[in-house]
Amino acid sequence: MTTPKLSTGELKALVRTVPDFPEPGIQFRDITTLIGHSEGLSASVHHLAEIARAKGAQKIAGMEARGFIFGAAVAVQLGIGFVLVRKPGKLPVSTIGVDYALEYGTDRLEVDPGSITGGESIIIVDDLIATGGTALATAQLLRQAGGTVEDALFVIDLPDLGGAAKLQQAGVAVQTLMQFEGE
Amino acid sequence: MTTPKLSTGELKALVRTVPDFPEPGIQFRDITTLIGHSEGLSASVHHLAEIARAKGAQKIAGMEARGFIFGAAVAVQLGIGFVLVRKPGKLPVSTIGVDYALEYGTDRLEVDPGSITGGESIIIVDDLIATGGTALATAQLLRQAGGTVEDALFVIDLPDLGGAAKLQQAGVAVQTLMQFEGE
Repeated sequence: MTTPKLSTGELKALVRTVPDFPEPGIQFRDITTLIGHSEGLSASVHHLAEIARAKGAQKIAGMEARGFIFGAAVAVQLGIGFVLVRKPGKLPVSTIGVDYALEYGTDRLEVDPGSITGGESIIIVDDLIATGGTALATAQLLRQAGGTVEDALFVIDLPDLGGAAKLQQAGVAVQTLMQFEGE
Repeated sequence: MTTPKLSTGELKALVRTVPDFPEPGIQFRDITTLIGHSEGLSASVHHLAEIARAKGAQKIAGMEARGFIFGAAVAVQLGIGFVLVRKPGKLPVSTIGVDYALEYGTDRLEVDPGSITGGESIIIVDDLIATGGTALATAQLLRQAGGTVEDALFVIDLPDLGGAAKLQQAGVAVQTLMQFEGE
C-alpha cells in the first residue's frame, strides 16, 4: 500500500451526491466515485485501519455487499480475520441469524458462528451509517455469536438520521471519516 | 499489512469443503474459513496483488458480493481505483449493463461508465471461477465501457467446470492461487 496523501476533507470531496435517488427528495451519497479514485479508496482504508488498530481490533466484520469493500481491506491492513455478515441462505453451513425491521417489512442477517472466537474484539466497518438499523442488528448478531462489539467505523455519517446515536445507546461507539448534515 | 507467511498450499488447506451444498452432489468450496483466518485473507490478497502489479493493472474490478472482498483489498495494496460491478438497480446513476445466462434463467450486471477511463488496463478479481459465466459477462461489460481487459485473477479455480478455458478463448488470461479438481 502506498502512503495515502488525502485528508478526510479531500476524501469528502470525492463522494458524489446524486439528487432524488432512490426516491424524490433523497440526496444519495455515492461512494462509487471515492472507490474508483486512485488514492481515494486506499486513503479511506488507511484512515479506518488506523482507528481500528488503536482500538485493538482482533477481527473486522462487514455486511453484504458494500461493507465487504472497506471491511475486508481494513482487515488486510491489520493482518487480522474478516467476518462475513451475509444475507439469508448465502452461507453453506449452519448459521445464527437476526431479523430486523426496515422502513417496510423486515430483513435478516446471518453469520457462521465458527468465524468468531468467544470474547474476541470485533469492530464493524461499513461505508455509511444512516438510521443504523443494519449496523445495530449486526452488533446484536456478533454478540450473540460470542464476540465483544464496542466499536463501529464508517466512511460516511448522516447524523440527521440518528444512527450513530442509536448505536451508542447500545454500547457501540461510532467513529466516521466524514459527515453530511442537512445538505 | 504484515508480510504474509502462508504459501498458496497452506491457503488451500484453509478452504472448507461443504458437501452437498447448495444441492446434493456438489462439493462447495467455502472461503469463509480462509477469510476469517488471521493470515489467510492478507496472504491471499498479497499473492493476488503481486500478480496484478506485475501485469500493470491500472484498476481492479470486482463483482457483487464476494468479489468485493478480494478485489477492493487488492486495489488498496496497489493504490489504484476499484470498479464496482453491481447487480441491477444498485448504482444511483445511469449505468451500462450486460445480461448473461445462468443455469436457469438470466442475470444482469451493471457498471457506472464514469468509473472507467478509456483504454485503461482493468484486471478482474474474484474469489472463485466455476463455469466462468459471470466473469465473462464482466469482461464484456468492462470492455463495452472502454476498458482493456486481458487478465482475471481468482483465489480458487474449479477446472472441471471449464471457466478458465472459456475466458481464455475470449482473450482473458486466467491466474488462480489454487485448484480443486474432481475431488
